[in-house]
Amino acid sequence: MASIKITGQKRLVIVSGRSHPELAAQVAEYLQTDVVHTDARTFANGEIYARYDESVRGCDAFVLQSHAKPINEALMEQLVMVDALKRASAKRITVVAPFYPYSRQDKKGRGREPISARLVADLFKAAGADRIMSVDLHAAQIQGFFDGPVDHLFAMPVLLEHFRAQLDPATLTVVSPDMGRVRVADIWSQKLDAPLAIIHKRRDPMVHNQVTVHEIVGEVEGRVCLLVDDMIDTGRTIVKAAEALKKSGATGVVVAATHAIFSDPAFEILQDESIDQVVVTDTLPVPADKRWDRLTVLPIAPLLARAIHEVFDDGSVTSMFDGAA
Amino acid sequence: MASIKITGQKRLVIVSGRSHPELAAQVAEYLQTDVVHTDARTFANGEIYARYDESVRGCDAFVLQSHAKPINEALMEQLVMVDALKRASAKRITVVAPFYPYSRQDKKGRGREPISARLVADLFKAAGADRIMSVDLHAAQIQGFFDGPVDHLFAMPVLLEHFRAQLDPATLTVVSPDMGRVRVADIWSQKLDAPLAIIHKRRDPMVHNQVTVHEIVGEVEGRVCLLVDDMIDTGRTIVKAAEALKKSGATGVVVAATHAIFSDPAFEILQDESIDQVVVTDTLPVPADKRWDRLTVLPIAPLLARAIHEVFDDGSVTSMFDGAA
Amino acid sequence: MASIKITGQKRLVIVSGRSHPELAAQVAEYLQTDVVHTDARTFANGEIYARYDESVRGCDAFVLQSHAKPINEALMEQLVMVDALKRASAKRITVVAPFYPYSRQDKKGRGREPISARLVADLFKAAGADRIMSVDLHAAQIQGFFDGPVDHLFAMPVLLEHFRAQLDPATLTVVSPDMGRVRVADIWSQKLDAPLAIIHKRRDPMVHNQVTVHEIVGEVEGRVCLLVDDMIDTGRTIVKAAEALKKSGATGVVVAATHAIFSDPAFEILQDESIDQVVVTDTLPVPADKRWDRLTVLPIAPLLARAIHEVFDDGSVTSMFDGAA
Amino acid sequence: MASIKITGQKRLVIVSGRSHPELAAQVAEYLQTDVVHTDARTFANGEIYARYDESVRGCDAFVLQSHAKPINEALMEQLVMVDALKRASAKRITVVAPFYPYSRQDKKGRGREPISARLVADLFKAAGADRIMSVDLHAAQIQGFFDGPVDHLFAMPVLLEHFRAQLDPATLTVVSPDMGRVRVADIWSQKLDAPLAIIHKRRDPMVHNQVTVHEIVGEVEGRVCLLVDDMIDTGRTIVKAAEALKKSGATGVVVAATHAIFSDPAFEILQDESIDQVVVTDTLPVPADKRWDRLTVLPIAPLLARAIHEVFDDGSVTSMFDGAA
Amino acid sequence: MASIKITGQKRLVIVSGRSHPELAAQVAEYLQTDVVHTDARTFANGEIYARYDESVRGCDAFVLQSHAKPINEALMEQLVMVDALKRASAKRITVVAPFYPYSRQDKKGRGREPISARLVADLFKAAGADRIMSVDLHAAQIQGFFDGPVDHLFAMPVLLEHFRAQLDPATLTVVSPDMGRVRVADIWSQKLDAPLAIIHKRRDPMVHNQVTVHEIVGEVEGRVCLLVDDMIDTGRTIVKAAEALKKSGATGVVVAATHAIFSDPAFEILQDESIDQVVVTDTLPVPADKRWDRLTVLPIAPLLARAIHEVFDDGSVTSMFDGAA
Amino acid sequence: MASIKITGQKRLVIVSGRSHPELAAQVAEYLQTDVVHTDARTFANGEIYARYDESVRGCDAFVLQSHAKPINEALMEQLVMVDALKRASAKRITVVAPFYPYSRQDKKGRGREPISARLVADLFKAAGADRIMSVDLHAAQIQGFFDGPVDHLFAMPVLLEHFRAQLDPATLTVVSPDMGRVRVADIWSQKLDAPLAIIHKRRDPMVHNQVTVHEIVGEVEGRVCLLVDDMIDTGRTIVKAAEALKKSGATGVVVAATHAIFSDPAFEILQDESIDQVVVTDTLPVPADKRWDRLTVLPIAPLLARAIHEVFDDGSVTSMFDGAA
Repeated sequence: MASIKITGQKRLVIVSGRSHPELAAQVAEYLQTDVVHTDARTFANGEIYARYDESVRGCDAFVLQSHAKPINEALMEQLVMVDALKRASAKRITVVAPFYPYSRQDKKGRGREPISARLVADLFKAAGADRIMSVDLHAAQIQGFFDGPVDHLFAMPVLLEHFRAQLDPATLTVVSPDMGRVRVADIWSQKLDAPLAIIHKRRDPMVHNQVTVHEIVGEVEGRVCLLVDDMIDTGRTIVKAAEALKKSGATGVVVAATHAIFSDPAFEILQDESIDQVVVTDTLPVPADKRWDRLTVLPIAPLLARAIHEVFDDGSVTSMFDGAA
Repeated sequence: MASIKITGQKRLVIVSGRSHPELAAQVAEYLQTDVVHTDARTFANGEIYARYDESVRGCDAFVLQSHAKPINEALMEQLVMVDALKRASAKRITVVAPFYPYSRQDKKGRGREPISARLVADLFKAAGADRIMSVDLHAAQIQGFFDGPVDHLFAMPVLLEHFRAQLDPATLTVVSPDMGRVRVADIWSQKLDAPLAIIHKRRDPMVHNQVTVHEIVGEVEGRVCLLVDDMIDTGRTIVKAAEALKKSGATGVVVAATHAIFSDPAFEILQDESIDQVVVTDTLPVPADKRWDRLTVLPIAPLLARAIHEVFDDGSVTSMFDGAA
Repeated sequence: MASIKITGQKRLVIVSGRSHPELAAQVAEYLQTDVVHTDARTFANGEIYARYDESVRGCDAFVLQSHAKPINEALMEQLVMVDALKRASAKRITVVAPFYPYSRQDKKGRGREPISARLVADLFKAAGADRIMSVDLHAAQIQGFFDGPVDHLFAMPVLLEHFRAQLDPATLTVVSPDMGRVRVADIWSQKLDAPLAIIHKRRDPMVHNQVTVHEIVGEVEGRVCLLVDDMIDTGRTIVKAAEALKKSGATGVVVAATHAIFSDPAFEILQDESIDQVVVTDTLPVPADKRWDRLTVLPIAPLLARAIHEVFDDGSVTSMFDGAA
Repeated sequence: MASIKITGQKRLVIVSGRSHPELAAQVAEYLQTDVVHTDARTFANGEIYARYDESVRGCDAFVLQSHAKPINEALMEQLVMVDALKRASAKRITVVAPFYPYSRQDKKGRGREPISARLVADLFKAAGADRIMSVDLHAAQIQGFFDGPVDHLFAMPVLLEHFRAQLDPATLTVVSPDMGRVRVADIWSQKLDAPLAIIHKRRDPMVHNQVTVHEIVGEVEGRVCLLVDDMIDTGRTIVKAAEALKKSGATGVVVAATHAIFSDPAFEILQDESIDQVVVTDTLPVPADKRWDRLTVLPIAPLLARAIHEVFDDGSVTSMFDGAA
Repeated sequence: MASIKITGQKRLVIVSGRSHPELAAQVAEYLQTDVVHTDARTFANGEIYARYDESVRGCDAFVLQSHAKPINEALMEQLVMVDALKRASAKRITVVAPFYPYSRQDKKGRGREPISARLVADLFKAAGADRIMSVDLHAAQIQGFFDGPVDHLFAMPVLLEHFRAQLDPATLTVVSPDMGRVRVADIWSQKLDAPLAIIHKRRDPMVHNQVTVHEIVGEVEGRVCLLVDDMIDTGRTIVKAAEALKKSGATGVVVAATHAIFSDPAFEILQDESIDQVVVTDTLPVPADKRWDRLTVLPIAPLLARAIHEVFDDGSVTSMFDGAA
Repeated sequence: MASIKITGQKRLVIVSGRSHPELAAQVAEYLQTDVVHTDARTFANGEIYARYDESVRGCDAFVLQSHAKPINEALMEQLVMVDALKRASAKRITVVAPFYPYSRQDKKGRGREPISARLVADLFKAAGADRIMSVDLHAAQIQGFFDGPVDHLFAMPVLLEHFRAQLDPATLTVVSPDMGRVRVADIWSQKLDAPLAIIHKRRDPMVHNQVTVHEIVGEVEGRVCLLVDDMIDTGRTIVKAAEALKKSGATGVVVAATHAIFSDPAFEILQDESIDQVVVTDTLPVPADKRWDRLTVLPIAPLLARAIHEVFDDGSVTSMFDGAA
């Protein structure tokens, strides 16, 4: 037959945006490779440029970016990088967004609102992404926003491992900081075999001007409370919850969250004495000057590296969480 | 100029699948028009056929279908009807699915699962739908599954109006039947200014073989409990919840839900003495022989008719819910 | 270069819907593999769920389903399975529909009709199918309804092999049961080197009220007639044709068809004495209690297995039919 | 509200390619408007250019082109014109292709063939066409190749009107020139209430080297034969059929077809004495020097004009054929 | 017929991002309407939110945004606004980007680069934009990046009107600051009937280390030079060009450009004595503290308002430039 | 696991349209393979048909076509071939168009024009092309018209190599024949380290009726002028430029261009005595009877072959031009 045949090869390539280069470097290290160097620049008027130093033709590319503030810069950089990969004939492009941007705008709460989390999925698709990998989506339904495979990873095994050595189920209560996160707290409660409590914000009917009270549904007196959430943004909700728990007799308050957004004034208020410990992962960069002694930052790179390896090697990402979550 | 000009006209057309023709008839009546007759048939091998008796060229078409069992027949019939409208040059096609089919499969709970609620949105799109209208989506994020406008209606004003005359906030507690519906119960609690309780299913650590206990978080003793959910399928969860409430001292248990799926054995078990009253809407057909004396079925047609009118007339669907929800 | 290289592998995976599991099992057996187990279920309200027990990441997946009655259940199950494969990162998804559903609604006979055969192709595409494989499409143009490769297989070699040993060309006449299937009969006539006759339904101009007469165009007296069609649904057309042939002096009537839909009352009326033999394949399941002594069901699995193997191995499906058809 | 409101207007615009300008002029005349002038040119290297002399913003545009030889020039010109309309903000674009190009390549007869009729539909879509209008598609399934409305017109009423005055049903037989056109002949036979005959090409088993004989199935002796087909290309099939009919005792042979492709040597051989009359429409241009005395060319413009008017005015194209076909 | 008919209406709505609200206000004023108020906010972590205060259902929406620094914020805000319009059932959405973002990355200069100008078009499309309106695209080919109508406006009439009163063609030379803008300068030269000169950057072959010299091709001695460009970013190219012109004997240097990006250090260096005057438009905001006495900022709002009116009213944008450019 | 695994293979297949078969043969020869034979035909009415003689299932296909006159035939043939490859399950399809058709209609110069170069990209996409390979695009922005990878090759290294041996930089001036090609001439000027001149067409203000004069900007007296352009169509611009150069004292005029379109009357007028030499490549066929003694045609096949090899082998096309251009 009139043709040339060669054995097919698969080639894994990791590239990274500029918002959290350490994470990409760690992931590459776990995979025993290097991040392909990208000539990324911001021009005088703010436009972003990116070019790969090596051929990416035919490769299985993973584009890592942490969507930290300025988040739109991070997002646009990643889109530009995906476009460049597509035009450079990468075979498959996986967007790795450990913290999915705009994940909280996942529905129309009122008329004439955007559904920005869907928009972000559409933008990734328009740029040329074939797949998305993310950790602890704010709503699991976001998987359905993308028309293609989404590898949804869970940080819970990472966090659980940290807590198992430290906390005693006998005195522990898992607490949801509000109604919206009850489901997450419920899973923690099952995993740790500990009772559940919920903090319920309600207008105080006794007082005018809509003062909100924090009712605690469930038992917390004399208990160590583990406040769980998927992300900590300004920290206000968490701190108010911690104060309410302490006021209700909690003997300790430990906070666990996957995504450390830490917008102002999180750094200041999370050091409040009502909170004994904060444990997060580094899906978002936590710079040295935004850390304090009672904060623990667990590395997410091993989880990402393992998942990328499974994806590249046609293994199973699901099985990574079989035992743990 | 070489052209012919005429004044543009808009024309509203209602068509209906065969699963709940009374609903379409009522909607048309509220709009002071008729349902355009459709020659719909099921052939010997189960294939569905549909043809419109009148021209639908250039019209603003609304295709009503209730996704009752056999649900795949209902879905396929609606897809066939949308295809026929598209090919017959309808100008705009709105799928009206009061109960959105497959809404509970809205995420991958585990690996290798479908996201069927997204699939359904894709199927509607592929057939030619421009818009979707639905009532009380199981997860509001489903709005983001469709690449186009989704009019998300709320049955709460309809249900609330019924209850306001009947229930006394002073003795009322709103109850969520499980962790997953807490958010809905929370909204009811705000609207009715009544306290909240939650039923928490948990493996009993004292007993082997994973027996589940129903913990009640919150106060229910001596209270009338309003159990709220978006849908009642087999009714098992609701009945177990009602029993647990009564056992805990509730003086009454009233159930409110939008979608009366009523799969077996709902009809039998919902008549259990632990439940004093069940109130639903007819987004799904509730045939006469599936009704009992303590069941109230509120008509959803006025809500749909008003929303269709607003959509056709470029009014505001959002404003329909401004005061109420 | 900063990358990891491994040799690429291709992996064939067979999954099957629930309407005809024996067919999938036979196909897998011919290919010396197993069907990947699928946890498929129908929920109380009729919604279908499917999940694969093994990782399908990166595989070349073939999703078999027989579109027997209830046909919309079979179709929806296959769509759900395709969606699950897509989201589980299957590399390529081939829908295997031995009998293409809705194939008879392949054009608008009148205004405001759907073209459901195109709709089905669009639904498969929307769900994530890359390719379609089918046997004896009702109209070959259906290949053009799908935007991608369609492997169109022919059952004729299977049927011909059966008849060659049995029928004598010298006394044989190939008969088309109506005007619409003349082309198929023509091919059989060429292959068997036998003359052709056609049954022409016509209003009797002598009789009021549109009584239809069956004119036979061509010679059938003293001949064994082979009535050929692509499918037998209710069997009415075939039985009427057989009666007309016998009345016109045919000494025998043998019926050959690929797809045994056998809707009611096919099982009863095909046993009519005017028909001496019926030969079909099992593209659709023919349960034991729907078989009778003069019915022969030929296995289609060898053909499907060989075609799947050619597709997987980048061989040639076309060459499978070079000699035979 | 902050907005400006005006009454909507619809504006019909007719533009035309250069292959059959008279047809467009006639259509416009029937509609009592003018064809919008297009500056269409072919550059030195064969590239085609088109620009409209008037604004087409917001209009309902119909782009007429006759796909006569050189057919690829005609097709490309129409695609360029559609692109220009799209970019000039036409509101809706209908491709009017009285003879659908590449309609005979509507399926894969063998492996590795194109399905060019589907390709053409895809090209129209890619250029920006919203709708297609065509006359007597070679296969009705081509309607399903386009993802949008296709107005399929029938020339039969035009041809029938001509014949009704002229032919006597008592002595008439409708003849299909080959197996592939039997369905069309069947409809004519119903309409004219005349018997049917079919010409069956078959290898002569008595003679080596595959000489083809033309068997006539049905009675033609002493009858006037109306040979019907959708198109006449080189005319060879028709002339051979006419000769066979005359040889079998037909007293007259009249040919009716919609599309007069008339490729060489049609003009010469159709004047053969075996054919008494040829009747076609001008969906394709028939220049004066390609006409002869026994040829009748019926105008198709009234049909197209009426259909365009119905489409523009949201009327019913279907109803145009209610009585006649 | 079973339907409701009303006369169609068109409704023009203007909304604006936050980067240049004055421009939108001026445009609305020219159109004698108001900008629909948008509740636009940036959350703590940088995510943008937008919601319209009034119903936009069925409207013809124009979304204005000036893509000034921080340009990615401006772009993302506009995308979010388009998404919100789409989901709120706006009938048609036109992105108005007076300065098209990323327009200079309009091709791959080297391998593995993005084509960000195309990416931006794809992002607008993905969000839901139907049309784009822009002024003086860096390359006219960008029109072809968007799959839909692009209204390309020219600021030249605005600038020309300013200069005609002021400059004497007899002593004027039009100068292109580099090879890439020769075409623009050529058009100015035609319009003003003035000779052309070009500045050619070239490595000095006499000097090591690639020192660049500015050759002036054409006569400039004793002439007033009009340096024209589509945009001024940092101003470096323009200042070097002005210095070279003055050194070569130019008696005056006037600079004209459409887009005043004015990135650092433009404000400082454009005040250089080699430049006698700078004339720009306000497609991008030029804040009061970035203006100086020899700078003239011409309003672009009248041009945009007129174009929007033509688009809304199905008039002709082309005719706006018939006399002038 | 239930699956069959085999090692993946890649298979390169070259197919060719009929407009320049020698080029494809040469490319195949360089790659040490053969062109897969295609049964390509033009039917009586001008429709094109193509079928591959061998299986192309799973292959990496390159479809070569030279877009010479009749250019629409060449384009349509290539589209038909791409469609056939897609439907025959080719894995990846690269359109190789050494001269990109309709490349000069790359923008709307005026309102209501097409952007045919974008249309062509859309047609390739609609037919099924995954990638495009082309040489010296008229505007580099055309890369952005295609939604996928475009390998843009440069003939400059081929042409430069020819000239380096022949021309003396000391006496050489690079000349752009008009304003639109200045950028190309600039690059040649850099590469050859020779000064630049530009020919500027301008209306003569002294003479009525818009007589155009050819101003030469830059020094050409006593110099050998290298007139560079991407293509030569009718040759008129080049000949006028050559005459102007000779009149201004040029001692020699050499013409270099990539694409030899050579429409009438190029063959005649390029032999004018003002032109000493013409050097082109054979991206388009230059038949023997269209060649003359002072014409040199350089083979483009080596460049294409190398690029195809790099693409197939996941190498780098960019690196091919690292040293040279």
